[in-house]
Amino acid sequence: MAGEIQTPIRFGIIGCADIARKVSRAITLAPNAVLSAVASRSLEKASLFAKANSFPPEAKIYGSYEALLDDPDIDAVYLPLPTSLHVKWAVLVAQKKKHLLMEKPVAINAAEFDVIARACEENGVQFMDGTMWVHNPRTAKMRDFVSDPERFGQLRTIHSCFSFACDPEFLSNDIRVKPDLDALGALGDAGWYCVRSILWATDYELPKTVLALPGPVLNEAGVILSCGASLHWDDGKLATFYCSFFSNLTMNVTAIGTKGTLHLNDFIIPFQEKEASFIENSQCFFNDLVTAWVPVPSEHIVTTDIPQEVCMVREFSRLVGDVKKGSKPESKWPIISRKTQLILDAVKTSIDKGLQPVQI
Amino acid sequence: MAGEIQTPIRFGIIGCADIARKVSRAITLAPNAVLSAVASRSLEKASLFAKANSFPPEAKIYGSYEALLDDPDIDAVYLPLPTSLHVKWAVLVAQKKKHLLMEKPVAINAAEFDVIARACEENGVQFMDGTMWVHNPRTAKMRDFVSDPERFGQLRTIHSCFSFACDPEFLSNDIRVKPDLDALGALGDAGWYCVRSILWATDYELPKTVLALPGPVLNEAGVILSCGASLHWDDGKLATFYCSFFSNLTMNVTAIGTKGTLHLNDFIIPFQEKEASFIENSQCFFNDLVTAWVPVPSEHIVTTDIPQEVCMVREFSRLVGDVKKGSKPESKWPIISRKTQLILDAVKTSIDKGLQPVQI
Repeated sequence: MAGEIQTPIRFGIIGCADIARKVSRAITLAPNAVLSAVASRSLEKASLFAKANSFPPEAKIYGSYEALLDDPDIDAVYLPLPTSLHVKWAVLVAQKKKHLLMEKPVAINAAEFDVIARACEENGVQFMDGTMWVHNPRTAKMRDFVSDPERFGQLRTIHSCFSFACDPEFLSNDIRVKPDLDALGALGDAGWYCVRSILWATDYELPKTVLALPGPVLNEAGVILSCGASLHWDDGKLATFYCSFFSNLTMNVTAIGTKGTLHLNDFIIPFQEKEASFIENSQCFFNDLVTAWVPVPSEHIVTTDIPQEVCMVREFSRLVGDVKKGSKPESKWPIISRKTQLILDAVKTSIDKGLQPVQI
Repeated sequence: MAGEIQTPIRFGIIGCADIARKVSRAITLAPNAVLSAVASRSLEKASLFAKANSFPPEAKIYGSYEALLDDPDIDAVYLPLPTSLHVKWAVLVAQKKKHLLMEKPVAINAAEFDVIARACEENGVQFMDGTMWVHNPRTAKMRDFVSDPERFGQLRTIHSCFSFACDPEFLSNDIRVKPDLDALGALGDAGWYCVRSILWATDYELPKTVLALPGPVLNEAGVILSCGASLHWDDGKLATFYCSFFSNLTMNVTAIGTKGTLHLNDFIIPFQEKEASFIENSQCFFNDLVTAWVPVPSEHIVTTDIPQEVCMVREFSRLVGDVKKGSKPESKWPIISRKTQLILDAVKTSIDKGLQPVQI
């Protein structure tokens, strides 16, 4: 019913990863969510995390993941564990009938993700991955643009990059360079966002062919530290992306349609929390002597009352609330996660096969 | 000698292409150049062109290219003819001891360009191609940035795109879709700039491998209308580019180093004549919760007293003046042209061979 106040969705957090700090704050700020518990393998670590992240005094602190999962007063679990642990814990979360908000990459490969998605489906719980930028109000405005046949036309190409330069400590010890933890490395961590942006721009149409580009860098354990890839669709659309742990912090997207171009340099983390922009270039041409543009592309500024990660928690909680009232879980989110993972798998396979094209 | 006033270089223009209007104005505006003659195969066309483009009253009008080349009062020739005619006329220009400013692409392939470059060398004349953006003062500021080991570090990747959406009339009749005129099509016309920007960013280091990406579009005569490619260097650098006659007007460059990122959306034709900018992203990171950037990337605005095509004419004329005073022609320019052409050739070969990698 319109205007009905939803009972806040009670979140438990499993694992005290750095990213969980940001999501804890988002749960606190979301109008329909509440921090109810945190679990770590160490009670002390969980307790310190709760204190440092403004958990309410009534929040429960658990020294084991299982204990949190057995708590009947938890509706939903946020799971920021290393990727290799996802399948085990996500399935348990679902079996305990708790809704699942899980960090990306969602799995080591699509087959493992299918186990997770099936567990969620069989247990009637909502699944969503932790890709925040798609929930930014800016992204909805970008969608208005790229779906406009007059302003943007048909998508022809998109390039996306996400890189950040890691220090030797990260490159030796971070979970994202460990084959037993986040085996997809930079592809899973940074490439995930690039692939998601490409899928977003195509309205989630899977490409036909994926080809890793020359020069991927792997560590001695075979974890990808840097790579690029191209994706190709039957109708001629071409996408390229680049992700790396060795290059300066960059998160650019350029999507070009037959009639318009979308561009932004901060697609994953907006430059500012409360305001984000993108460049719309449509129906621009040149002056008579081709020495300047008329008109110049325009910047669209979208103000956001709440940060994008809060939008994510709010949307997830809204869906959970609907399920609690009898609706089916929204299948869009696991479908999008799976498509993203499928493309990561294909890039990895292409690299493993010496840069051969891989059919999706 | 410092402060010496150079006698203006006397330009003749061979062919009344659209682009010659812009360059005529640039010659008029350059302090060390003067419009002395124009030649067309039609005397009437040449006469109309001279009138429409503010040629001085004393400028000579020729109804044949040969007549202009025989004029002893011409120092330099600007040659905007279709690419397939370059080798014939450029060699004649050089043999007549006239310096040569020639439109891009410089030839149908590097072998043809070598004939041109050899003719220029043997006759002691200056060669320069008509790539204007490299002469923009902004480009010098961009060079300061990308060559700074602290602000930019080592280049890791660059993506460049240049596209514009052509109407059916262009796609049927423009010289750039005709195999006997500009056989390289979009690759030669638009891809030239992308490749040049990639070479610029690498300080003109040739890649080891060039690979055309899936989905090139060719017309029935085999002329490329749209394509993408990746370039790879032994040290792991990766470049990608996209050029097309089917996609909205876009001219973006993103170059990412180990410590900095350069970005601009108008690298070929600046949005405005007298002012141009680029984004420098260096030493940016995030706030504590990774919800915003600190600091945000900065925009560098470079004001230009004269437009970039005038800078080009001025620099070319300066070099011609030096040669007239006894210096050797500056070899940098034909070297850069040849490298650009070599990569275009490799992309074309890769497409012709079914997207096989091509070693440079």
